[in-house]
Amino acid sequence: MPGAGRAAGVRRLRPQPSEEPPAQEDLLLAAAYVSDAQYNRNVPFETSPRAIRLYYFYNHWTMQVAIYFFICVDLSLALFEEPALFPLPFLATSIAEVLCLTAFFGRLVHFAKVTPQMVFWKDMKNICIMVTIVLTLIDLIIYGSLEAVNIHSVRWSRALRPVFLINFPESRQIRRTFRSIRNTLPDILYVFLLFMFSVLIFSLMALKLFGDRGLQTVEGLPYFTNILEIAFELYVLVTTANSPDVMMPAYNFNWWYSLYFITYIIINTYIFMSVFLAVVYNNYRKHLKNEIRKLAYLKRHKMIEAFNILKVKVGTEFVVTEARWKRLARIVMPHISSPHLELLLRISDEGQKGHVDKMNFLRLADLLNIQVVTINIKRHPLEEWMPRVYQSSASLLVQRMVRHRIFVWVYDVIILINAIFIALDEKNPFISYAEWLFLSLYIIEILLKLYTYEPRAYFGKKQFWNWFDTLIIMAALVATVANTTIQSARKYNSQQILDIVLILRILRLLRIIVSIQRFRLIVTTLINIGPTILTFGGLVLVVYYVFAIIGMEAFHGKIRFFDPNFTTPDALVCGNPALKDSAFARDRYCKNNFNDLASSLIVLMELTVVNQWHILAGGFALVTHQAAKLYFLSFHVVVVILIVNIFIAFILEAFFVAYSLEKSEIETAIEKKIQELGVGIQEEEMQDGKLVDNMDAKDSGFSGDDGDNKRKSLKGLYFRIASKKYRTVDALLQQMFESEIAPEDEGPSLDEILNFSPGDIYPKNPNFENSA
Amino acid sequence: MPGAGRAAGVRRLRPQPSEEPPAQEDLLLAAAYVSDAQYNRNVPFETSPRAIRLYYFYNHWTMQVAIYFFICVDLSLALFEEPALFPLPFLATSIAEVLCLTAFFGRLVHFAKVTPQMVFWKDMKNICIMVTIVLTLIDLIIYGSLEAVNIHSVRWSRALRPVFLINFPESRQIRRTFRSIRNTLPDILYVFLLFMFSVLIFSLMALKLFGDRGLQTVEGLPYFTNILEIAFELYVLVTTANSPDVMMPAYNFNWWYSLYFITYIIINTYIFMSVFLAVVYNNYRKHLKNEIRKLAYLKRHKMIEAFNILKVKVGTEFVVTEARWKRLARIVMPHISSPHLELLLRISDEGQKGHVDKMNFLRLADLLNIQVVTINIKRHPLEEWMPRVYQSSASLLVQRMVRHRIFVWVYDVIILINAIFIALDEKNPFISYAEWLFLSLYIIEILLKLYTYEPRAYFGKKQFWNWFDTLIIMAALVATVANTTIQSARKYNSQQILDIVLILRILRLLRIIVSIQRFRLIVTTLINIGPTILTFGGLVLVVYYVFAIIGMEAFHGKIRFFDPNFTTPDALVCGNPALKDSAFARDRYCKNNFNDLASSLIVLMELTVVNQWHILAGGFALVTHQAAKLYFLSFHVVVVILIVNIFIAFILEAFFVAYSLEKSEIETAIEKKIQELGVGIQEEEMQDGKLVDNMDAKDSGFSGDDGDNKRKSLKGLYFRIASKKYRTVDALLQQMFESEIAPEDEGPSLDEILNFSPGDIYPKNPNFENSA
Repeated sequence: MPGAGRAAGVRRLRPQPSEEPPAQEDLLLAAAYVSDAQYNRNVPFETSPRAIRLYYFYNHWTMQVAIYFFICVDLSLALFEEPALFPLPFLATSIAEVLCLTAFFGRLVHFAKVTPQMVFWKDMKNICIMVTIVLTLIDLIIYGSLEAVNIHSVRWSRALRPVFLINFPESRQIRRTFRSIRNTLPDILYVFLLFMFSVLIFSLMALKLFGDRGLQTVEGLPYFTNILEIAFELYVLVTTANSPDVMMPAYNFNWWYSLYFITYIIINTYIFMSVFLAVVYNNYRKHLKNEIRKLAYLKRHKMIEAFNILKVKVGTEFVVTEARWKRLARIVMPHISSPHLELLLRISDEGQKGHVDKMNFLRLADLLNIQVVTINIKRHPLEEWMPRVYQSSASLLVQRMVRHRIFVWVYDVIILINAIFIALDEKNPFISYAEWLFLSLYIIEILLKLYTYEPRAYFGKKQFWNWFDTLIIMAALVATVANTTIQSARKYNSQQILDIVLILRILRLLRIIVSIQRFRLIVTTLINIGPTILTFGGLVLVVYYVFAIIGMEAFHGKIRFFDPNFTTPDALVCGNPALKDSAFARDRYCKNNFNDLASSLIVLMELTVVNQWHILAGGFALVTHQAAKLYFLSFHVVVVILIVNIFIAFILEAFFVAYSLEKSEIETAIEKKIQELGVGIQEEEMQDGKLVDNMDAKDSGFSGDDGDNKRKSLKGLYFRIASKKYRTVDALLQQMFESEIAPEDEGPSLDEILNFSPGDIYPKNPNFENSA
Repeated sequence: MPGAGRAAGVRRLRPQPSEEPPAQEDLLLAAAYVSDAQYNRNVPFETSPRAIRLYYFYNHWTMQVAIYFFICVDLSLALFEEPALFPLPFLATSIAEVLCLTAFFGRLVHFAKVTPQMVFWKDMKNICIMVTIVLTLIDLIIYGSLEAVNIHSVRWSRALRPVFLINFPESRQIRRTFRSIRNTLPDILYVFLLFMFSVLIFSLMALKLFGDRGLQTVEGLPYFTNILEIAFELYVLVTTANSPDVMMPAYNFNWWYSLYFITYIIINTYIFMSVFLAVVYNNYRKHLKNEIRKLAYLKRHKMIEAFNILKVKVGTEFVVTEARWKRLARIVMPHISSPHLELLLRISDEGQKGHVDKMNFLRLADLLNIQVVTINIKRHPLEEWMPRVYQSSASLLVQRMVRHRIFVWVYDVIILINAIFIALDEKNPFISYAEWLFLSLYIIEILLKLYTYEPRAYFGKKQFWNWFDTLIIMAALVATVANTTIQSARKYNSQQILDIVLILRILRLLRIIVSIQRFRLIVTTLINIGPTILTFGGLVLVVYYVFAIIGMEAFHGKIRFFDPNFTTPDALVCGNPALKDSAFARDRYCKNNFNDLASSLIVLMELTVVNQWHILAGGFALVTHQAAKLYFLSFHVVVVILIVNIFIAFILEAFFVAYSLEKSEIETAIEKKIQELGVGIQEEEMQDGKLVDNMDAKDSGFSGDDGDNKRKSLKGLYFRIASKKYRTVDALLQQMFESEIAPEDEGPSLDEILNFSPGDIYPKNPNFENSA
């Protein structure tokens, strides 16, 4: 073994300021070095205790929470600055902002201390943050001094605030999506140019065909006489927002002209928009596959390295002895139970030859990653406290009843009846009493289940639906009680609490989904991709924030909202005479304005949904300038053409992975072994398991009350493979790719792996592994 | 060889009533039997000469044209029947219909004669056609007799007419898409139910949250008080057609309520609609892959069979001798040139050992499929007629000029200037003179190119852009001359001709696309998928036709269109007082009605684009019954959720294939060989080729005037691989899958291949191979 490689392995052992737990293969490689006997003689730790303390401190959760707190404060300042939802004086917000900037700077200095200088300055993220801090300070000073002499200027640096959210190492996912967008840009640009060319050609045609006809729109305006207006109208038609209105004057004139619009829609709306999705999706997939490929090869590489450290020649082949293998596994997973370790060994050492060969060793990281649930035949607490009562025939009958599938069906029927009652008028006193009946029925259900199933298993980490049930019912109980108390005390309903009660009451109906197997599959996939959807939430927040700040600077105060009961002429034109007779005022869109952050975000949401966006754009163009339409056009291009398509691409990919990967190979191998070794759940018991399954409790250990001899003989330990339902898309993709690498394939060299693309998955600086 | 297999091979030799040319591998297998010496002794032809004549007659192009003609007549009868665009008496249309039915029946009888009875009656298609003929006759008789006693009834059988279009063997592609839809249905159904459940849950919430607030819509109607109306409004919101209007009353009341709508849109519009696309796309891909896999394995299977017939043992391995191989190739491709055959042999017989081994033999079908263009150094006709003039220095200068890339650039600039002139007002006489100048410039360009390049090559089969150019310019010339003649004769412009001139003039600008390489790539992919998009056209036509017939029966005459200049109260409510104050009348949608086939199809197109569909649905519900909305809802589900998504899936897949498959393996092998053998286009010539390439003439043979010794020495024959640009998606996919089959993989057994799915790609009846 060359010394350099070993040193790298050792460096990886150092405490790492990384937000993610290190991967199984990293631990294995490090453990291989540790368990290697020769290693103990020369420990090449180069770091001082103080540096290690700094690392730990940088990585401490309080520091991370603090930085997120400051990012939130910084972003939410827009709520308090002019135009404000809750106005605060400029002095207060600027002091808060300076505080935030100080915190960001402090974090950066801290980071610089724990990172080699070279690495720190090479990282664009750090430069970005510093430049943004400086720019914000400059802007603050200029704005403050101008404000002091009563000149109103623009707080442009506010649009830069999301930079802090993007560039801190903790928001890796958002950065990844941004990188994905950046990679897509060149490809999308050409399609976009071609698309714009097509729109222009059609605009020219429209000008020539309809310009001289003297046609009029519904509003009595001239129809298709100005090339720029035509181009805008046709762009809007691509988004379908003004269909069929834009066609009607020409169609009314002569029905042959509808062919022009049909051609336009087929080419630009259907074909070009699909091509945009294709380009975005293709890039998304390419990018994803590259990252996954890198990870898979890196893992293989590390496992081979670990094997090479531990290998011993037995006969003609190199193997790892059982003793070494066990020591290694114990180092990596200190809390592993002996039976679990024994199981893994029996799977790895197929021939029971006392050693593990290379192919099986390479699978070790995957084996350790698989969550084999050791089913402890834990007794129900009640059984321990009062075994007589719990084991009495009446109690057993109750338990059998609850486990029976009829119990589930009965409650499904109850939910349906409940739905009908909700739809009926709740003014009727009988119905409001029924509500109490339903609430108590649901509470009884939960109590019965807790009586039957082991409570710790029932509230297991991944028992989504059990948690959902209990929380909804408890919240409904609290809210209903609170509402009744207020009602009886003050003789009127509290509107907010009543709203909450209503929503909770209806959310309970969602439980019916769980009873239908096919529904559960779809919902599980949706829950799986939940975390990544949140990443998109972050991405959308960043883009929305920037556009909201720009929108507020450009449009605030131009359009005002009056109470709907106001019917003064001023209220009808949203406080701006320029809107007289406009579609904007006619549709009563006055509340869609940029007068504060919340309103701005809602307007942007409406623009994302696309419909009527041309009316919004037209309204703001009327009160400012026609050029304002550019703001709306660019929002459409960025959000609808890029981000929404990436979102769709992501959901498509997630569903494809979920459809195509039912069981990975390795897990099947383990399952077979578990069955062979006779320590798995038997068929007859699976029946029982299915019932629990109906409540989505597949990976709970549940206490079986029917004592089984074989079970007891194995010290109450059983194995089951944890449910795959909650795996992430990334993990699934990695498995898909790994199954494509042949077992004997050692992959390309480390350098080649690293140069798969200029990404930063494998760090030059091992401290920030996986933090890119 | 077992006799049965041989007989099957022979049967395949029989003339086949199939609309497609037989695949290369079928020919090869048949040829293998023919070239097998033993074969000639016992020819097991079981068919009589009369049967063969019947086959040929059935398959004759006139018969196919006739049947398509009758289908067109049958479908277009809807234009002449009540409610008619061009009314004809019932007697006339019914006679026409009976004629069509007779023709269809005759075709069916003919088909039955050339098909074994068992096969004929097992085929659902034939049963379908017969049932439809009978039903149509019954309907005609009932309707006719009721009409005779002046009772108006419904011509329901008209909705069945597309059955003829779908079920005749010639419309295989449409059937395939329908099969794809049918396969998708179960999966989509569950997602749809879950989606409807979600819409209902949200409707309940909306009823409880907003129902009692006494809110009003812009029209002053009560807001969200009826659960069915809420469900409809929320379904419309999923299509985004009533966003943000549906939200405004609640949002105006309290901005917190916007959160309800945002949640709804995220879940139902973004997530569920993406899931629909994912399900449709996933099924589309699965289905496609299965068909492709079948085809690929079948091909492999047939090639192995052919090899087994021809093989001879040489040394330790079985091979096919050179003589046999050549005879086989000659049978399959009688018109192959000797140098081309030599080239193929040299590629197949890598070691020049005088025989072809199994692996190379299996590739033969692919080799023959690759269009190797033999470049005949044909002389320019002018060069042959007057070599002196054509080879004079002035002529050579012109030719060099035309070949130069500056020539292309100059014309790009001319096009741009032309675009500016078109945008300007053509009333100015100077500009209308300029139009003549541009026209003559374009004509000169074409003449110059014809002078420089070999005309037959310039108008090659796949020279899309050359054809496009010439046709556009010629049409513009004719139309402009016609217009000027009419103008000078009658002193006014003919509107129709002027419109055509204008459109042609603008279409010329499209040529600029060809000059930009990246644009060309996208456009080429789009042109490639053109034929399949036409298939979708057929599918859409079928669905539109059925919905149009139903719509005409339900809604015709309820809404009338008056000339826009009419402002009588009747005209403002589309001739129906029920529409008073409705959004339908306010937006002047009166021409969107079901009063004839053309109008109906345009309304359906508008519904496909989705925007404002709730206003259209609302209008028709007002003039008939609220249940009419079901018609529009079902149209949305069928067309937008199913068909549009399949269309998007298809475009996505086509682009992925185009992106991922740049060059297939076999072609690279041939290219290498061509280079090795020194018969390929040299680098220096490629430069020249690129210039032609700029006009997309890559696969044209072009006459090089710079004599090359090496070239001449090879009898004026050169090879180039034909452009892959015009390949179909199916062919690309098949190649992708084949590259995944290992060369030594013989694939599953024939029975297994056939049972990949219950599809009908491989026929039990060899007569209708590939006709499913």
